[in-house]
Amino acid sequence: MDPTSPNTHDSPNCISAGILAINHGVPEQVQTAEELAPLIGKSADWIRAHAGVNRRHTSCPDEDPAALAAAIAKPLVERFGEPDLVLHAGVMERQLLPEISVFISRELGLSGVPGFTVNATCLSFLVALRIATTLVRSGSQRQVLICSTEFGTRGRNFNEPESAALIGDAAAVALVGQTDHSSRILHYAMETWPEGAELAEVRGVGVMRPPNDLNTNVEDNLFHMEGERMLRFLIPKFRRFLDKFLTDSRLSLDEIDLIVPHQTSLSGMRVLEKLGIPEHKIVNILADYGNCVAASIPLALSIAEKEGRIQRGDRVLLIGTAAGLSIGAALIRW
Amino acid sequence: MDPTSPNTHDSPNCISAGILAINHGVPEQVQTAEELAPLIGKSADWIRAHAGVNRRHTSCPDEDPAALAAAIAKPLVERFGEPDLVLHAGVMERQLLPEISVFISRELGLSGVPGFTVNATCLSFLVALRIATTLVRSGSQRQVLICSTEFGTRGRNFNEPESAALIGDAAAVALVGQTDHSSRILHYAMETWPEGAELAEVRGVGVMRPPNDLNTNVEDNLFHMEGERMLRFLIPKFRRFLDKFLTDSRLSLDEIDLIVPHQTSLSGMRVLEKLGIPEHKIVNILADYGNCVAASIPLALSIAEKEGRIQRGDRVLLIGTAAGLSIGAALIRW
Repeated sequence: MDPTSPNTHDSPNCISAGILAINHGVPEQVQTAEELAPLIGKSADWIRAHAGVNRRHTSCPDEDPAALAAAIAKPLVERFGEPDLVLHAGVMERQLLPEISVFISRELGLSGVPGFTVNATCLSFLVALRIATTLVRSGSQRQVLICSTEFGTRGRNFNEPESAALIGDAAAVALVGQTDHSSRILHYAMETWPEGAELAEVRGVGVMRPPNDLNTNVEDNLFHMEGERMLRFLIPKFRRFLDKFLTDSRLSLDEIDLIVPHQTSLSGMRVLEKLGIPEHKIVNILADYGNCVAASIPLALSIAEKEGRIQRGDRVLLIGTAAGLSIGAALIRW
Repeated sequence: MDPTSPNTHDSPNCISAGILAINHGVPEQVQTAEELAPLIGKSADWIRAHAGVNRRHTSCPDEDPAALAAAIAKPLVERFGEPDLVLHAGVMERQLLPEISVFISRELGLSGVPGFTVNATCLSFLVALRIATTLVRSGSQRQVLICSTEFGTRGRNFNEPESAALIGDAAAVALVGQTDHSSRILHYAMETWPEGAELAEVRGVGVMRPPNDLNTNVEDNLFHMEGERMLRFLIPKFRRFLDKFLTDSRLSLDEIDLIVPHQTSLSGMRVLEKLGIPEHKIVNILADYGNCVAASIPLALSIAEKEGRIQRGDRVLLIGTAAGLSIGAALIRW
């Protein structure tokens, strides 16, 4: 235990709960900036300069996000045993009903294990991680499998090059359980600003503009973003959020070993650098994967872990902005 | 504290967390069995005999589920103050992105309060209640507003009279916080059986059959249910589940004051009676409201509370089956 670190989530006789293992996967098919360029009427150079995405994985129409999540969860379940809760953390469902955790469980051969979806837009993994660790620490669950599997390229609007250039498909999974080291969430915060709800949205695929309604148009079912207005709205709030987060956790940026941000966009990633965070502390996978919605944060975390960038005991800050608009962060001891 | 009741969720120095207040509301428009009959090619008597639903509320196309939830949450927020978390518990989103808690917050004039969706199909309210009480008890949240607002009539398939006769629209909200009485979840359990995933589903409105895909047909976006196969699948599992639930909570059915079941269908409600539960202990609102998806359980709970059927200290069993297929229950001390 580190006496300098606060125990926002700690009670005296606590169980330590953290990520036992993490994994990720992507659809095989890759779409390069060169291949995307003619579809959105821009050059590959424009895509790289504006979105910062050189290539992204794109699922085929019959590829199943539940199957991808299960494939990468399998080695974790084989090593640590069956989870007693399956938690899907993400925006996109396989179908409206039942929600996707059921299909992930089916692919894993689980039967009788409860499951549900947590959707906090691009911050879903942070929220699910907090729920999972809280349930494990309270003794209510033993082992929780969190899955984020997002095939966002199916919702790209090619008439909106700015957002279409960003999105990629991916899945990441994390197994949360009791740990014998000091793993835990050191501090957590989230804020939602409905004033910005219309700056990043998919207006359809819900009860207000349902698919069978003749007034629902093709663009309603696709992602729409007003990148510049979003940035202007979020930057001052983000600065304040981060200041307060660090004050409340009694830490400076120097004391954080690694920062795993949501891979929003090139401008979004640059905001972090402008706040004085050194580049080598930021996990940046945007160029190779794009913005993978709620899978972005756990994907970046899994890649960093596999590259040996995280050691047990490290302080890792997961942080991001999301449709809503929301800002959220979880500081974890790995 | 009752020494005979187990403290599944209790640690020695616990904070009591429970429902501070509950409320419900419905769209103004009513559709009687007589009015629905010609739309599904059956008689009003057939609807009453098969579905057990005499009337249901049906939202108008431009009615907003977030506005309905906010309207019934308003008096709770005015009385108890702003929540520090808004949790939508349900299947149906207003639109794909952002999820609906953002729009409920907007209608309530909240700004900066985090929100997310928990979707465990028709058991969403139970799961959300467990998450909310666990977060309050751990000191992580002060007051959580849970909202279930479901406009399922927009997904009725009139070519499938069996399921179309069941559905109704409603919303219910509950404010969860620290209590000075002994309110809490005494016991909780959920099981999911993916083997039954196809017995109750909406195959569309997700990434596998997206709205813009020409291969997605109108029926993919509507509710499909195989009622008889569902019952055959669930009844033996439900008996075992309930036996184990009572054993684990060290209580008999006699010691439970009120049972608030998900309002599945007439046959579903009859299963409870066949298990020997006396009718007067069961809250049955099916005839007047139909199956309101995830809003059914909190709606029935709110109606029972307003009718004076629940007193502080009572043991209330919330229980239901759901698409997935899932079975879940939460035994609460009111």
